[in-house]
Amino acid sequence: MSKPLILVTNDDGISSPGIRFLINIMNDIGDVIVVAPDSPQSGMGHAITLESTIRCDKVIIDKGPQVEYSCSGTPADCVKLAVYKLLGRKPDLCVSGINHGSNSSINVIYSGTMSAALEGALEGIPSIGFSLLDYSHDADFSESEYYVRKITNLVLRNKLEKGICLNVNIPKFIKDSKLKGIKICRQANANWKEEFQERKDPKGRTYYWLTGQFINYDSGNDSDEWALENRYVSIVPIQFDLTAYKTIDSLKDIFKNE
Amino acid sequence: MSKPLILVTNDDGISSPGIRFLINIMNDIGDVIVVAPDSPQSGMGHAITLESTIRCDKVIIDKGPQVEYSCSGTPADCVKLAVYKLLGRKPDLCVSGINHGSNSSINVIYSGTMSAALEGALEGIPSIGFSLLDYSHDADFSESEYYVRKITNLVLRNKLEKGICLNVNIPKFIKDSKLKGIKICRQANANWKEEFQERKDPKGRTYYWLTGQFINYDSGNDSDEWALENRYVSIVPIQFDLTAYKTIDSLKDIFKNE
Repeated sequence: MSKPLILVTNDDGISSPGIRFLINIMNDIGDVIVVAPDSPQSGMGHAITLESTIRCDKVIIDKGPQVEYSCSGTPADCVKLAVYKLLGRKPDLCVSGINHGSNSSINVIYSGTMSAALEGALEGIPSIGFSLLDYSHDADFSESEYYVRKITNLVLRNKLEKGICLNVNIPKFIKDSKLKGIKICRQANANWKEEFQERKDPKGRTYYWLTGQFINYDSGNDSDEWALENRYVSIVPIQFDLTAYKTIDSLKDIFKNE
Repeated sequence: MSKPLILVTNDDGISSPGIRFLINIMNDIGDVIVVAPDSPQSGMGHAITLESTIRCDKVIIDKGPQVEYSCSGTPADCVKLAVYKLLGRKPDLCVSGINHGSNSSINVIYSGTMSAALEGALEGIPSIGFSLLDYSHDADFSESEYYVRKITNLVLRNKLEKGICLNVNIPKFIKDSKLKGIKICRQANANWKEEFQERKDPKGRTYYWLTGQFINYDSGNDSDEWALENRYVSIVPIQFDLTAYKTIDSLKDIFKNE
């Protein structure tokens, strides 16, 4: 039987430890093509490059059977370029990550990692975004391996519904506190309370750094935040139809005489 | 009675005709504060600026009672900066646009205009994104005015559900083909079939332009694409919870023994 064709991307950039770790795992599972940003793209959301050109070159980052392309575009650009230009056929799987840092709850909408996975889903490819709750460059991915393999193999064996991708978040490695398993969850109701740090440049002109505090308003035990706090790997199925169906009727009511 | 405080932003940049048109209308309705990108940000999706600094300066673009800030960040940054730094209080309304070009159906996920509106909704502010189906810099916004006023006033009078924002798209102006009214819709099932134009730079190195063809797979008459094709203004209520709730049970089944 032929091996599955697996597209690997991320938003931390092609040389980040998280994607190198993911590539190594995927090399065991299928034929791997990497198309990933040439530089960090955290917080890029679902950006695409419309106003400027895109560069994409074949590169060798380290040893291994994978074929790799380094791309000047966003994570969503990488997936589009892979599907429409670089791969001869639609891949059997698209995996994005492993992100250095959480993409749970509201972070999903800002996440380049998840926009790449969502872009894969849009193209009808079973897609998974993996994130580890550790922002450090030297994050310990060792405990993730078991879950990444398991989830990947399950998705390859069982078809995901078309247009759905998985947002997988993995708690930070803590010595002597083993992960408890996997929970299928909904996106928690949480948000960032932002703080803009105001500074002066050497010429005295003001600039800002965006920073903030994450606040979880959700008290349910079926949310991704609950699962992660309780040392489970969380999986949230996500979709690209943003329609708030429940609101359509009340809105029709407001606009009924117009 | 005090006038409502209205935050205006966009993704085409603070000097684009669409936002100038929107500011003029909003000046009649409330006290207007503009915080908008200093340059075009189309296709920026829900990007935020995490890896670099943000500039934001008070500017005067043209005459009027509005207070304006030009910001180096993305549309989502503009809303965050307005809410957490520049405005003394939460605005009563956030409007984004008028975008030069469609943000209907799948375009919503790539749209800087809509990410600004969604960011407003996240902050608990009634928010509306307006887009005209005309990419031209010299687009004719005259017919939009009636609908922008009507929708804005209805949203100010009737509270939107928390966390919901409106994605309003307006058909292109065609002489002797008057708009027929407003339809409340769902996001159409449509997508882009991309094409990457391959070119060589003066040094012979390859680069790409992202381009593509929009394809509507949706045959329903309750979608935004249907409404727009039939000369209605479409309004889709959208939300930031991306959970595919319908998929949770089947996913639990796949993972039940893990």
